[in-house]
Amino acid sequence: MGRIICCGLGPGDPDLMSVRADRTVRAAQHVAYFRKKGRPGQARRIVEGMLAADVTEYPMEYPVTTEIAFESPEYVQLLAGFYDEWAERLARLARAVDVVVLCEGDPYFYGSFMHLHTRLQGRAAIEVIAGIPGMVGCWNGVGQPIALGDDVTTVLMGTLAEDELERRMRDSDALVIMKTGRNLAKVRRALASAGRLDDAWLVEQGTMPGERVARLAEIDAADCPYFAIVLVHGKGRHLDAAE
Amino acid sequence: MGRIICCGLGPGDPDLMSVRADRTVRAAQHVAYFRKKGRPGQARRIVEGMLAADVTEYPMEYPVTTEIAFESPEYVQLLAGFYDEWAERLARLARAVDVVVLCEGDPYFYGSFMHLHTRLQGRAAIEVIAGIPGMVGCWNGVGQPIALGDDVTTVLMGTLAEDELERRMRDSDALVIMKTGRNLAKVRRALASAGRLDDAWLVEQGTMPGERVARLAEIDAADCPYFAIVLVHGKGRHLDAAE
Repeated sequence: MGRIICCGLGPGDPDLMSVRADRTVRAAQHVAYFRKKGRPGQARRIVEGMLAADVTEYPMEYPVTTEIAFESPEYVQLLAGFYDEWAERLARLARAVDVVVLCEGDPYFYGSFMHLHTRLQGRAAIEVIAGIPGMVGCWNGVGQPIALGDDVTTVLMGTLAEDELERRMRDSDALVIMKTGRNLAKVRRALASAGRLDDAWLVEQGTMPGERVARLAEIDAADCPYFAIVLVHGKGRHLDAAE
Repeated sequence: MGRIICCGLGPGDPDLMSVRADRTVRAAQHVAYFRKKGRPGQARRIVEGMLAADVTEYPMEYPVTTEIAFESPEYVQLLAGFYDEWAERLARLARAVDVVVLCEGDPYFYGSFMHLHTRLQGRAAIEVIAGIPGMVGCWNGVGQPIALGDDVTTVLMGTLAEDELERRMRDSDALVIMKTGRNLAKVRRALASAGRLDDAWLVEQGTMPGERVARLAEIDAADCPYFAIVLVHGKGRHLDAAE
């Protein structure tokens, strides 16, 4: 009886993988990972050079279609089928062997493995290895404490409505905004309305070779970087030396 | 010219330290860490068995006093002097050698190293190694995704006022509450008022030998556990298979 081991790989730099994840990846005989068709996939890229020579790889390629819009119910249904199919395939595999599923960041923090996790409950033994979340790698790139003292930290998705983003940006000390990409113009407007734009940083490819750390206000408005996180640092509410 | 290397150790299990942190700790010739007088110190405990035989240790012992109240301005001043003194001492050491400062979790996320970080700016070369934050270790202990889809995640300190806690607990999908300890009764009341108590977990000593994971509602109200974090999981706002 094998297991499905969901292995958090951390923010991108393989040196920031946990000792356990490093050992697990190197010993793996069967590894699965999500990727877009024709792309190497971010998780797979992190472990480049670490896999055993005789490993079997299972790239789980998101279905592509030129006919159906990304936001349509049809595409949602297509994806649900894709997750169903892979959950079934991994569960079947795990009857005989250990399967390592490679996951960026920490699997339990907004991770796409969760679509499989839900479907695999009761069907296979699942083990999850914690990882450094992508946002942690990003704020380390800025080199300042993201939060201290009694700061409230809020993690927001750029997909939220602009007025909700603005309200929450006003109401939190430290801010982390994920899923930026196509939402970056909206995120920028909401930060400006909330009076936080001048304190905002954009970190792209955090901890990875192409890392870029810049003040968001200085980024070209037409720029929609990939793997980018927006950060606003807390100032240390109620902070005194006693912290 | 040496450096001050602030090494994030992760949530507690040494196996969850990053590969870089593991290597840095094992190679260290000079290590410093905070601890309470008469205690081994949590950071030092994590690296037990990993340090070189000829390492020099610098336990930075918080000043104790039986005369002055913890919250008083006098104690705050005493602590400021303590941080000043250690910043000076580490900066002097780093002129000749590398000093590794051991830090629980991720140093930039509510870390006490920040009192030294501020004071050391411009006086020494500082390097920070990211770690898995303690909260990540805790939610891995529960074994459910803490947040997914468009969930808003809020990190709160138990030291905040009860009405602010309650308001923010109502207004967020996923919740992480740190600095519980003596504030646990207040945190519990705020969660109950916000209608979130039944969904709350308490994780004590996450990823460590004494780990305890329990529903907060079932914990004895007089219990004030140490190193405990309270979690309420998000339910996946706007989550569909397209995530």
